[in-house]
Amino acid sequence: MKVLKKKITAAILVIGNEILSGKTQDININFLAKRLSNLGHILKEVRIVKDNKTQIIKNIKLLSKNYSNVFTTGGIGPTHDDITSECMSLAFKKKLVLNKTAQKLLIDHYKKSDVHLNKSRLKMAYIPLYSKLIKNSVSAAPGFKIKNVWVLAGVPKIMQAMFIENIEPKLTTGKKILSKNIKILIPEGDIAILLEDLQKKFKKLEIGSYPFYRPPEIGTTIVLRGTENKVIDKAIKVLCKNLTKAKIQFLM
Amino acid sequence: MKVLKKKITAAILVIGNEILSGKTQDININFLAKRLSNLGHILKEVRIVKDNKTQIIKNIKLLSKNYSNVFTTGGIGPTHDDITSECMSLAFKKKLVLNKTAQKLLIDHYKKSDVHLNKSRLKMAYIPLYSKLIKNSVSAAPGFKIKNVWVLAGVPKIMQAMFIENIEPKLTTGKKILSKNIKILIPEGDIAILLEDLQKKFKKLEIGSYPFYRPPEIGTTIVLRGTENKVIDKAIKVLCKNLTKAKIQFLM
Repeated sequence: MKVLKKKITAAILVIGNEILSGKTQDININFLAKRLSNLGHILKEVRIVKDNKTQIIKNIKLLSKNYSNVFTTGGIGPTHDDITSECMSLAFKKKLVLNKTAQKLLIDHYKKSDVHLNKSRLKMAYIPLYSKLIKNSVSAAPGFKIKNVWVLAGVPKIMQAMFIENIEPKLTTGKKILSKNIKILIPEGDIAILLEDLQKKFKKLEIGSYPFYRPPEIGTTIVLRGTENKVIDKAIKVLCKNLTKAKIQFLM
Repeated sequence: MKVLKKKITAAILVIGNEILSGKTQDININFLAKRLSNLGHILKEVRIVKDNKTQIIKNIKLLSKNYSNVFTTGGIGPTHDDITSECMSLAFKKKLVLNKTAQKLLIDHYKKSDVHLNKSRLKMAYIPLYSKLIKNSVSAAPGFKIKNVWVLAGVPKIMQAMFIENIEPKLTTGKKILSKNIKILIPEGDIAILLEDLQKKFKKLEIGSYPFYRPPEIGTTIVLRGTENKVIDKAIKVLCKNLTKAKIQFLM
């Protein structure tokens, strides 16, 4: 029996009042989106929620059920508003316990500085049972993986270290998603039909049209995404031919 | 009978493959989050979805049901991947029809330039029945309001013009959410208990602790948010007293 290889899908859950209040401009989503795309994982949706137990648990259960991998950011620090680990423990019914390895990481880290490993900091070593730790070289406090959920820090530098050092090498690579762009200096309204026809002809591709508006430069970026280089190149050839026919200049 | 004034809540639905592929760093969420916060509207959640009919319709129905206002960004341009208006029409079962006012806006706008109002551009004047147009001074194509959903452009300049010029003045103002910050140059782990006690004492406030890590500057921003200035000031007084007692310097 021939088994079709399932697509690898992903979702991101951003946890943090500071994003929803506008205090902080999130840059974690874009980082993860790019990296996942390069790995051939299809990011299907992102949700941003408050530091609220009910909301976090509900969303984590649902996303974990619907997608191959879920990545959460935020809420694993030492303060009262860091409730992600507790929520994971409740969502997956795994006790939150003092993880000896995590504890040792913290002890070793704080030994080097004059920072005291107090009760609050030790909270960061409480991890749901049967989770795998996600270490990082920036801070000592680890993230963890529980079921198909990767629980990461919210501070971009730490989150990025976790992802690059200890997640990326472990993820199965999906069919790489290739992307090519063509830029034209006329508004997208002039090529809409041309693009629609192209999309109909190349159903396997995701053809996007993105206007940019930075007067005096007004134009459109056409993005072609897909898993087969040959198909993308063929579509680009057709597109360029049609643009030339319509006397529209383009940059590749 | 005393009727409690209901809180004004909000959600954002970002529609666009370009955000999920990592091609574009979203800045619309942060803009809307700040503005809504200033208006006293509580942004409860954000979702980012693909240009996918099923996904858009499902989310818009759910968010519209759960929150006072929903703001969508993206997908109202002239190309084949702009499907937001059609989705709104399907979600709320209101026919998508040529809106004469929107058509006139486009005619007048394109008359001034040598751009042709072709069939693709005219697509931007097709609006679900009984919607109210949201004009803007940057581009001619309007957004629209249907039920409690405000449908906005994805291009930040245009989206911002729509919001500032034609939405903000129309929104009911909720109880203004006030916010004050205190910055300390030590890690949050050292003040976690202090903050937890403060949060317990001031249940009406949302007290957040946000570590920053830009070596050599490592520290914490403490944010106190609430609707009553008096309560925030009282909490700050207690906090500063306790920081002083613990010999921790702070900046306000």
